[in-house]
Amino acid sequence: MKLTILGCHSATPRAHHNPTAQVLETKGHLFLIDCGEGTQVQLRRFKIKFSRIRHVFISHLHGDHFFGLIGLISTFRLLGREAELNIYGPKGIKEAITLQLKLGKSWTNYPLYFHELDSDSPQLLFEDDKLTITTIPLDHRVYTNGFLFREKPGERKLNIDAARKANVDLSYYNKLKQGFDVVNKDGKTIANKDITLDPDPSKSYAFCSDTAYYPNIIPQIKEVTTLYHEATFLETHQHLCEPTKHSTARGAATIAKKAEVTTLILGHYSGRYDDLELFRNEAKQVFEAVELAEDGKVFEF
Amino acid sequence: MKLTILGCHSATPRAHHNPTAQVLETKGHLFLIDCGEGTQVQLRRFKIKFSRIRHVFISHLHGDHFFGLIGLISTFRLLGREAELNIYGPKGIKEAITLQLKLGKSWTNYPLYFHELDSDSPQLLFEDDKLTITTIPLDHRVYTNGFLFREKPGERKLNIDAARKANVDLSYYNKLKQGFDVVNKDGKTIANKDITLDPDPSKSYAFCSDTAYYPNIIPQIKEVTTLYHEATFLETHQHLCEPTKHSTARGAATIAKKAEVTTLILGHYSGRYDDLELFRNEAKQVFEAVELAEDGKVFEF
Repeated sequence: MKLTILGCHSATPRAHHNPTAQVLETKGHLFLIDCGEGTQVQLRRFKIKFSRIRHVFISHLHGDHFFGLIGLISTFRLLGREAELNIYGPKGIKEAITLQLKLGKSWTNYPLYFHELDSDSPQLLFEDDKLTITTIPLDHRVYTNGFLFREKPGERKLNIDAARKANVDLSYYNKLKQGFDVVNKDGKTIANKDITLDPDPSKSYAFCSDTAYYPNIIPQIKEVTTLYHEATFLETHQHLCEPTKHSTARGAATIAKKAEVTTLILGHYSGRYDDLELFRNEAKQVFEAVELAEDGKVFEF
Repeated sequence: MKLTILGCHSATPRAHHNPTAQVLETKGHLFLIDCGEGTQVQLRRFKIKFSRIRHVFISHLHGDHFFGLIGLISTFRLLGREAELNIYGPKGIKEAITLQLKLGKSWTNYPLYFHELDSDSPQLLFEDDKLTITTIPLDHRVYTNGFLFREKPGERKLNIDAARKANVDLSYYNKLKQGFDVVNKDGKTIANKDITLDPDPSKSYAFCSDTAYYPNIIPQIKEVTTLYHEATFLETHQHLCEPTKHSTARGAATIAKKAEVTTLILGHYSGRYDDLELFRNEAKQVFEAVELAEDGKVFEF
């Protein structure tokens, strides 16, 4: 999985700080997650192929997470897009987008599908033979979902030497990769586990922004490879978390620790802090494997 | 008048080209004209004081002229704005903005007034003791207005020496500046024109974007100091003007010449041209005083 951070700062855009948007590349897909104002410019800046984006996931309808969507949809039209585009987001997103297209007499010339969300329990949004995408209900001032991208386990790996020794015919190799026991040339049943190895561990990515400290999500994100969790504040501003429904770096790290994730990426920093290392330092007191999101940064896992 | 170009490129935003937005500073006001995506970032980049903007004029509801408005309105709220904000734009703009604020549960905490436009004849939008602002109905694919900013004539200038010689009492000087004849210390009537000079010529600025070549506007913009006129295409793409309702550089220059303006500024260039000097060259064949808008450029007149 390759994650490109297009923007990771909270609320008010500044000259060199972009609001939330990121692109996850996995299994041949390019998924856009959130779309703050200026996202289409960031996509160009980091040379991400617009046309390969078929699915856009919007966590919630605060401006710093979705005001860039209408511009992106309009630009797709100007560029002559033909491929369908799927938008997943809270109920109301369809009306907001279609009203603006209508006012500009700018109907799209490509299929545009809205998948509106209003459930408070995890929903399966997408599934193909290689991965699933599920909502992670969060705790914010408005209806908000995170998103869990989970690769399906790959095929088992054939131990060629062991298969030959067991006198298994070549034609059974695909069955073996799929996990079946087979019968060898001598008519004897060979247990799959004796001549195959476990597949590479499948990767998973959980995007959780915006949210208050919300332990309810822990079972769902248990042992994910990478967790992006918002850290709007440092503990010195803990008192702001409750009214704004945001988290501290320590809160995010506590979630990461309890969920036993491999890596935690922090983002959605409030503009009041100049030194982002303070976020890393605070989180590291709880959980070691901490990374800081920055606009333009790429994470591969 | 001081005009700052925040963006002057058409349609699709690119990494270093911004869609239409400009700020006109005159007589103590800061007027924002159009508000494409990313305008708030451009305002920051060019260090323009957000809080001084009280009036925003939106020409039409195509994305490259108004998708930045919702973000700006939201940011004003986050910054704790208290001063009122007036939005002038086509009918429908209020619904588009308020729907998005509602979806994000982000009502403004400052007075926000919409002045929706649907007239096909010039409307007076703003007047104080120093200037007027009037719509300039244009010819585009959707309902579109340009805007005419016109300073009122200043006071007449006192010719102090002549006033003294004419034996006019000091207490009459204000009356003289206002254009009245006065009676001198000897009881004789003194004609205003004999002891005052004409005021400085008043400045005016006409913003005309987007529009096809539209001579109907000429009487209204006659002899303005500065005309910003869109030039989306060069003559080589004249055939695109009719279906898209845009102008060429030559068309813009013809309007400038017929209207006898002092200076023409071109903008709204299509992304298909790399060399903007081609626009200047084409326009200069018709009208000499041509300037090219560029993001970040400041014009004082």
